[in-house]
Amino acid sequence: TRQTEETSGDRELHVKTTLRELIIYCVFLIILCVVTFGMTSTTMYYYTKVMSDLFLETPAGDNPSFKEITNVNDFWEFAKGPLLDGLYWETWYNNKTVSDDQLGYIYYENKLLGVPRIRQLKVHSNSCVVHDDFKSVIRECFDSYLESLEDKSSFGLENGTAWNYQTQDQLDGSSHWGLLATYSGAGFVQDLTRKRSESEALIGDLFDNLWITRGTRALFIDFTVYNANINLFCVVRLVVEFPATGGAISSSVFRTVKLIRYVSVTDYFIMACECIFVLFIIYYMIEESLEIKKHKFSYFKSFWNILDILVILIAILCFAFHIYRTLEVTNKLQGLLKQPDKYADFERLSYWQTQFDNAIAIAVFFAWIKIFKYISFNKTMTQLSSTLGRCAKDLAGFAVMFFIIFLAFTQLGYLLFGTQVHDFSNFQNSFFTLFRIILGDFDFHQLEEANRVLGPIFFMLFVFFVFFVLINMFLAIINDTYSEVKGDMANTKNEFEMADYFRKGYEK
Amino acid sequence: TRQTEETSGDRELHVKTTLRELIIYCVFLIILCVVTFGMTSTTMYYYTKVMSDLFLETPAGDNPSFKEITNVNDFWEFAKGPLLDGLYWETWYNNKTVSDDQLGYIYYENKLLGVPRIRQLKVHSNSCVVHDDFKSVIRECFDSYLESLEDKSSFGLENGTAWNYQTQDQLDGSSHWGLLATYSGAGFVQDLTRKRSESEALIGDLFDNLWITRGTRALFIDFTVYNANINLFCVVRLVVEFPATGGAISSSVFRTVKLIRYVSVTDYFIMACECIFVLFIIYYMIEESLEIKKHKFSYFKSFWNILDILVILIAILCFAFHIYRTLEVTNKLQGLLKQPDKYADFERLSYWQTQFDNAIAIAVFFAWIKIFKYISFNKTMTQLSSTLGRCAKDLAGFAVMFFIIFLAFTQLGYLLFGTQVHDFSNFQNSFFTLFRIILGDFDFHQLEEANRVLGPIFFMLFVFFVFFVLINMFLAIINDTYSEVKGDMANTKNEFEMADYFRKGYEK
Amino acid sequence: TRQTEETSGDRELHVKTTLRELIIYCVFLIILCVVTFGMTSTTMYYYTKVMSDLFLETPAGDNPSFKEITNVNDFWEFAKGPLLDGLYWETWYNNKTVSDDQLGYIYYENKLLGVPRIRQLKVHSNSCVVHDDFKSVIRECFDSYLESLEDKSSFGLENGTAWNYQTQDQLDGSSHWGLLATYSGAGFVQDLTRKRSESEALIGDLFDNLWITRGTRALFIDFTVYNANINLFCVVRLVVEFPATGGAISSSVFRTVKLIRYVSVTDYFIMACECIFVLFIIYYMIEESLEIKKHKFSYFKSFWNILDILVILIAILCFAFHIYRTLEVTNKLQGLLKQPDKYADFERLSYWQTQFDNAIAIAVFFAWIKIFKYISFNKTMTQLSSTLGRCAKDLAGFAVMFFIIFLAFTQLGYLLFGTQVHDFSNFQNSFFTLFRIILGDFDFHQLEEANRVLGPIFFMLFVFFVFFVLINMFLAIINDTYSEVKGDMANTKNEFEMADYFRKGYEK
Amino acid sequence: TRQTEETSGDRELHVKTTLRELIIYCVFLIILCVVTFGMTSTTMYYYTKVMSDLFLETPAGDNPSFKEITNVNDFWEFAKGPLLDGLYWETWYNNKTVSDDQLGYIYYENKLLGVPRIRQLKVHSNSCVVHDDFKSVIRECFDSYLESLEDKSSFGLENGTAWNYQTQDQLDGSSHWGLLATYSGAGFVQDLTRKRSESEALIGDLFDNLWITRGTRALFIDFTVYNANINLFCVVRLVVEFPATGGAISSSVFRTVKLIRYVSVTDYFIMACECIFVLFIIYYMIEESLEIKKHKFSYFKSFWNILDILVILIAILCFAFHIYRTLEVTNKLQGLLKQPDKYADFERLSYWQTQFDNAIAIAVFFAWIKIFKYISFNKTMTQLSSTLGRCAKDLAGFAVMFFIIFLAFTQLGYLLFGTQVHDFSNFQNSFFTLFRIILGDFDFHQLEEANRVLGPIFFMLFVFFVFFVLINMFLAIINDTYSEVKGDMANTKNEFEMADYFRKGYEK
Ligand SMILES: [Ca+2]
Repeated sequence: TRQTEETSGDRELHVKTTLRELIIYCVFLIILCVVTFGMTSTTMYYYTKVMSDLFLETPAGDNPSFKEITNVNDFWEFAKGPLLDGLYWETWYNNKTVSDDQLGYIYYENKLLGVPRIRQLKVHSNSCVVHDDFKSVIRECFDSYLESLEDKSSFGLENGTAWNYQTQDQLDGSSHWGLLATYSGAGFVQDLTRKRSESEALIGDLFDNLWITRGTRALFIDFTVYNANINLFCVVRLVVEFPATGGAISSSVFRTVKLIRYVSVTDYFIMACECIFVLFIIYYMIEESLEIKKHKFSYFKSFWNILDILVILIAILCFAFHIYRTLEVTNKLQGLLKQPDKYADFERLSYWQTQFDNAIAIAVFFAWIKIFKYISFNKTMTQLSSTLGRCAKDLAGFAVMFFIIFLAFTQLGYLLFGTQVHDFSNFQNSFFTLFRIILGDFDFHQLEEANRVLGPIFFMLFVFFVFFVLINMFLAIINDTYSEVKGDMANTKNEFEMADYFRKGYEK
Repeated sequence: TRQTEETSGDRELHVKTTLRELIIYCVFLIILCVVTFGMTSTTMYYYTKVMSDLFLETPAGDNPSFKEITNVNDFWEFAKGPLLDGLYWETWYNNKTVSDDQLGYIYYENKLLGVPRIRQLKVHSNSCVVHDDFKSVIRECFDSYLESLEDKSSFGLENGTAWNYQTQDQLDGSSHWGLLATYSGAGFVQDLTRKRSESEALIGDLFDNLWITRGTRALFIDFTVYNANINLFCVVRLVVEFPATGGAISSSVFRTVKLIRYVSVTDYFIMACECIFVLFIIYYMIEESLEIKKHKFSYFKSFWNILDILVILIAILCFAFHIYRTLEVTNKLQGLLKQPDKYADFERLSYWQTQFDNAIAIAVFFAWIKIFKYISFNKTMTQLSSTLGRCAKDLAGFAVMFFIIFLAFTQLGYLLFGTQVHDFSNFQNSFFTLFRIILGDFDFHQLEEANRVLGPIFFMLFVFFVFFVLINMFLAIINDTYSEVKGDMANTKNEFEMADYFRKGYEK
Repeated sequence: TRQTEETSGDRELHVKTTLRELIIYCVFLIILCVVTFGMTSTTMYYYTKVMSDLFLETPAGDNPSFKEITNVNDFWEFAKGPLLDGLYWETWYNNKTVSDDQLGYIYYENKLLGVPRIRQLKVHSNSCVVHDDFKSVIRECFDSYLESLEDKSSFGLENGTAWNYQTQDQLDGSSHWGLLATYSGAGFVQDLTRKRSESEALIGDLFDNLWITRGTRALFIDFTVYNANINLFCVVRLVVEFPATGGAISSSVFRTVKLIRYVSVTDYFIMACECIFVLFIIYYMIEESLEIKKHKFSYFKSFWNILDILVILIAILCFAFHIYRTLEVTNKLQGLLKQPDKYADFERLSYWQTQFDNAIAIAVFFAWIKIFKYISFNKTMTQLSSTLGRCAKDLAGFAVMFFIIFLAFTQLGYLLFGTQVHDFSNFQNSFFTLFRIILGDFDFHQLEEANRVLGPIFFMLFVFFVFFVLINMFLAIINDTYSEVKGDMANTKNEFEMADYFRKGYEK
Repeated sequence: TRQTEETSGDRELHVKTTLRELIIYCVFLIILCVVTFGMTSTTMYYYTKVMSDLFLETPAGDNPSFKEITNVNDFWEFAKGPLLDGLYWETWYNNKTVSDDQLGYIYYENKLLGVPRIRQLKVHSNSCVVHDDFKSVIRECFDSYLESLEDKSSFGLENGTAWNYQTQDQLDGSSHWGLLATYSGAGFVQDLTRKRSESEALIGDLFDNLWITRGTRALFIDFTVYNANINLFCVVRLVVEFPATGGAISSSVFRTVKLIRYVSVTDYFIMACECIFVLFIIYYMIEESLEIKKHKFSYFKSFWNILDILVILIAILCFAFHIYRTLEVTNKLQGLLKQPDKYADFERLSYWQTQFDNAIAIAVFFAWIKIFKYISFNKTMTQLSSTLGRCAKDLAGFAVMFFIIFLAFTQLGYLLFGTQVHDFSNFQNSFFTLFRIILGDFDFHQLEEANRVLGPIFFMLFVFFVFFVLINMFLAIINDTYSEVKGDMANTKNEFEMADYFRKGYEK
């Protein structure tokens, strides 16, 4: 938007221009909000919840549910029980068989697209070095997962995809950022079928022939469901990671996305808004490029201009993705309807759709923040923002000091309690945990259990220095600066403000 | 109450008048408190707890309790087990049969009024549009509940009320504000009977013939119990909502109300107080209307006058409802005693009784706040209230700034985490969640799980800007203003105060 | 202790006197601490925990444990299972029978003194008024418990103490302050025996003949155990209250007390300290009485003198109780050893012992606070205490304002949410809950569930007014006063201080 | 590092020297961080977690898991079930027997070094005095554990190590700091074997012959596992303590340590860094000793010098341990590989390794703090640190006052609630609990349950005095001092700063 300094010669004109800009901006903001709120709905949360409750929380008889899996055995109990129960709904609740038409729907409502796929990744048996002393006793060594250590040789029955390695390209897969490592899209895959009995037999085969070996490091279960009632896809990935320590750690990804955008009447209204939005973006693009031409480098010195550029860039990226998505989905669905027995890979598409949603969300946030550019029509407001501005330097100096101490404590916490307490098990966790202590959210007993002497001492020292001394100094800085600014403002005359403009117009 | 400015000429008279007004007001307040505390008692909480524990927390064998219902199957297990166990107490704990006199009492104490009713609402099978690509595969589509989409056609056995639709008027029902939608009072109803075995058979019939279909969107179980020991009604509604995503979400309403007011001796004492209260209200009504006549518009400029009007209005409304309630209850009970096998609908009556209780509660709160009008007899007090008054403008300016940032964060949180985290699943939740973070009540791990990168960033940014910067600025404003006010007060002479009045009287 | 003003003429003498007083006082404090820490030990907590875990937390098969009892049935399951299992340990863990010598020990370590007693209290069937409309249907009415409503007529089998009422005097009982009411010490009692099989039969009889009736309002299980290893008694009372609403509410009292004081060597050391303590008290008594004679009324104007009097009074009371306890215990134990099959009532003794412990604890607290009288030897200290002193008036004015608003909110919370939420179920709970909100400990979802509209509004309003506005004003008052005091102190000369005294002594 | 005052004559030289020192110091710090982060890894936490989940959380059928053991019976159920299941993995998940090569691995990955050992400690039957009144009834008395009270006589079958006492020297054990006492390394031991069936028989024998007697006070299960994949040892100790009150309290120690340091390539890189680190330490040692020679006593007056000395001392100690550890481990492992059926005692080694890790962690923390020595190049920074410096005296005075009140409350809390509430069960717990209340982490209901009258009063008083009054005064002190310092700084000229140095260099 236009640089406001130009008009500073004539204050009345300035106000007029600002006012016009503000009104245009508000229209823009409303359109943007309509578009974003049109993209999302509370139903999406319920969809995620219903699907995740079904697969993650249902216990396998006496065995734990997927969320609480701690070893290989638990996984097999899950795969044979809750997984199959969740995927195949072949009878009504009163045990009558469902009609053929109604087969293949989870909860009778959510169409399972294609078939689910189970995939595993292994490391080979010489992936690490055994210490000389143990070499006579320990013959095999399976390191933590690294793509370079992947075991690509066939094993077990050696027939079928389940026992033969396929590369990421062959599987058209993508890598996955797990809790312990980032896994490639390659591996040994077993596609299930559309019938429960057949799938059960397939899983039974894997179980009997020890499909999960000591080298197995990760296992993925992938499938996609589509709910026509609410026009939403849910792309599900259940992951079990097997660390080199033994045991198992489960995690999951449920991506509820609206891949098909325009179906109902409301959807077409959103579409109209999106068109207007595109026009706005084009308008702002032209304006900003004119300004850049005029002001050159100095353009980039203004915080508000950077914000403008950011919002425009995100908008362009999202628009491009929007077109790609529409094409890709149509393509995928047609393939799928022809071959309903093949695995339907919506993984990558849903990932980018989520990124798209996030990008839009951040753009809207920036757009909201920009309102502050226009809200200088009030003395109190100026007082507050100039307080923030003036104590910025002091706060920055303080922040450096604060962060050195904070990081020293973070490292200390990680090194002292890292092997015992989850909240300190790596540097980031340790950082966030200490941050949460400041806000009063902590588990003292955990620290005390980890180390009966150093735990409490660490805690008291941290709270004393960071919570009491530093946070209070923070407050002192703001408090002091505010008094100063208020004192200064009291002496200066009110500049010509927006309020005056309205008063003037009224007096005419 | 009288405008106090009139007497400002003569300060002594002013104090005298204020004192008289204060004493009258205190009497009024005491009467009001007696009335409200007479209306309620701790027993009411225990009654709610006992009833809700019985129906919500009792698990159905290995199946979850009503509170944890997640699908249709869970509901049927509840209906066949804990529901019937809770409603019918036909044997003593040592398995001896209860005498006929004692039949129909929950926990042997709480009389079941009439019979319980089960009601469901459905949407029809073409209530939404299926995307063209899927039309060949997906033939039926059941939208989320909207009154206009209700399925009114008979189904299943097609005989009896359970299989035939009745309108809200036919059922004399009222709408219900559920978690997912607002439901009408219409639907398919099945009244149970006063015998366990018969009710069991009725529910069995519904189960066998698939009463709950894919179109079912909500299911209500309604009944009312009356405990003569403590003279309280408990109106129970158990709701199971079936979202369009599949699965089920349960909720419940337990309204413990005192519909019959005057039974014991204490009750008659309360009645006397209520009469005095009515006299007071009449007195204040006359006074205020005189004042309005005198001061016209300027009357409404005083905060205290608005408060007076509000209290009087609420009192009048409550009085009107009080009379209506007494008539209605007598009417209902007589009908009920004649036909003990019919469903007794106390739903609407209890709803309005609750609103009545709330209205009284708010009136008392206003009445308490009005005390501040009279408490200006002390310098410290004036100091505090003028601090509040003087920083009001600054605080308002600050509040605008605060809320823009806060709403921007609310929207960002909703868009980023809404599909994953319950606390951000809609705009209000997101708002309250961020508010709770300020108070130190949050679940960081949830955010981290929803998005491992943006979650922590969002959290840190929010805490930094809102918690550290803005809240501290808030404090700076109050702190600074207080110093100012105290400085000003130190210089001004004490005005003639109530304390002086007493001293003067003493010196005479 | 001596009035310090007397010596204000000669400052050096003043310091000397103060110093001597301080040293004497420290010796007194050390003796007092030794005595109190000698009275208690960490073992007492473990004893309470072990006993309460055994009786409260052990589940009765699939039925809930004592803590979670919600109805009559649960109680009987507890009485037949965990209660008997907890009381009678007649076999070792490998199922060999315990020798006769070892019988009657809980956990093989804790001697059961006498036999356990089960007692119940009932109200009679016409204890309340039934409304006219219901009179034809509801014939019996059992009010909430009041001593005057007790049912004293025999019932059931009508033989034995279990079915015949005994008064409080006959039972030598005392009243009990329960959750719902205060119960008398009268009732229908059933003493168990020292053999498991006999006790089981007795409980079976009660169960078969419906001992717990609709009129039963409370049920007590009493017994006392003694652990010779650690020389501690644990007096156990398990209470089940049956509210008039139906259902049941359990509570319990575990009083771990050291009724026999002097057994081991350490005990005799404590005894010596106690003697010195008594001498101290006599010394202070004489001193204070002399001062009272001298200063008359003005003596009672000093805060420190009041503290002295309080400490002395508590000490005298405790000493008196100490002697009574020793006599009473010896008496009881001898009776008990003669008749091991009778119920041993340590209820009242343990109650007073607990009160004795608490009184001592409070006396020690006062004694600690008195140290401040002597700590004025430092400028900073004076600065802090005079800040507190000077802002006391402002704080008091503020407190009045604060409490009116706080109480208004308390009442509002109680009336709005009292029937639904435990935290607001009575006035005190409501008060404490709001207090806890200020400290950041609250359950927002509970409020939201109780009332989806008023809950959040109430919460936001409360937090805004009380947490943000009032608490911050609190801070402003202290902050401002501190600046003032510091400014004043900077101008005044240092008075002659204790530090000077030492310096002077050093210079000589 | 060099005393900086020397160069204060020539400011430019001073800055130059400081800069050079800073750069060297940063290199040192980076090396130190690399070394410490090389020592630890997130895998260590997962290893601890996997092992502790397996042994602590697995329930024994319907009986509780190790963590929830409350009596002797629970322990035996654990020993016969989860313990054996956890130690011996003799079949694959599909029930095929594991090959001989693969035997002796927990989770098929973690080699069990040697055999597990079970050890118990007893006290003799006359370890305490029974009161005269009870002497006729109570014949045996088992005191709480003290080393001097240990029962050294044989018992039960009287054959084998399980029934015969061995001293700490015979067992080569070390003492253990438990929850209730510090236990010696002596006792009755039973080594298990490498076969499940044999171990089961051994435990069965102990169970049948009542190995755990009334005198048993503690029981230890020790074993060590080694994971070659990640080159980590996990030294496990499960402890069950039997207090003199009866019942049982379980605790555990899992020490995950890297006893073999140099195996993989990364390890050798760390080794190189360690060598550089040693060189650094030698350099600093020489420098500091030169300085000590020069400045003598005055050297120890500087805070930074003390820090230097501390870091160097810790480094030397760690280096010495590093060499000892390497030798000891090699030694142990060779012994172990020769005799795989003997118990392998890594207890003491792992304890010192943990201390070594902690020492390093603290050294790094000190090293980080030292950065502040060099960060005086900025006015804001100086402002903050001089605020801290100047209010130190006031804060110290305040701290004395604060701690007297705080300790008085701590003692009051301990004496009032110590027998009922775990959080107040001893002085330290009481202290930490009150500290946590300040941070908003407390359990009000617990206090209320312990004492319905004094609990809430204590809580409110504490919060009012400590939270509101004292903490706010704390803030007032910092706030006031900051204003002062800022005022002073504004008047003084900027000294020559590092920033000027850079500017100057740029201008040349
Ligand atoms: Ca908190």
